Amino acid sequence: MANLFENLPVALPGELFETLARSKSVRIERIVSHGQVSPDGFWYDQAESEWVVVLQGSARLRFDDEAFETVLNTGDYLLIAPHRRHRVTFTEAPTVWLAVFF
Amino acid sequence: MANLFENLPVALPGELFETLARSKSVRIERIVSHGQVSPDGFWYDQAESEWVVVLQGSARLRFDDEAFETVLNTGDYLLIAPHRRHRVTFTEAPTVWLAVFF
Repeated sequence: MANLFENLPVALPGELFETLARSKSVRIERIVSHGQVSPDGFWYDQAESEWVVVLQGSARLRFDDEAFETVLNTGDYLLIAPHRRHRVTFTEAPTVWLAVFF
Repeated sequence: MANLFENLPVALPGELFETLARSKSVRIERIVSHGQVSPDGFWYDQAESEWVVVLQGSARLRFDDEAFETVLNTGDYLLIAPHRRHRVTFTEAPTVWLAVFF
């Protein structure tokens, strides 16, 4: 049985993205962060909707259309609309995210 | 900020199903169980694929094509193919599931 909280690397040069399930219309990913943040000036600008939850650790997101940061503690989830520009400004080590792109 | 582990009812007459996000092709649900199991003789037989994870508590599933039960502890996930008949034979109180139907 596969488990979201197992096989967590102890350190990572970059974030670890793993596709857990996918179809034509949906992709389910586990993302493990170890303190990584988006590079300076980089913004995610995605064609898909992204529903995302932090399942372990914590993180902060900055949306281009908001002046403040959004804190995500364990269990917090949100829906990011297509092309809503955002970047990751903080992640605890480790932070486990589950993301559904559709 | 909405949180998967908040607003858990302390007792439930039945399971609590909440749609967290949906589109034409995908539906993301939180399911909270409080010891409920599938009624005798009842089998889920779904047209959609279901990716499901237990995020709090534990549960057991029985698939019609297997003689044994599948135990799901916190973090365990699996993909249930369309029309693969299954039933819930045990849930801890509370058990929080996240299910993605697509």
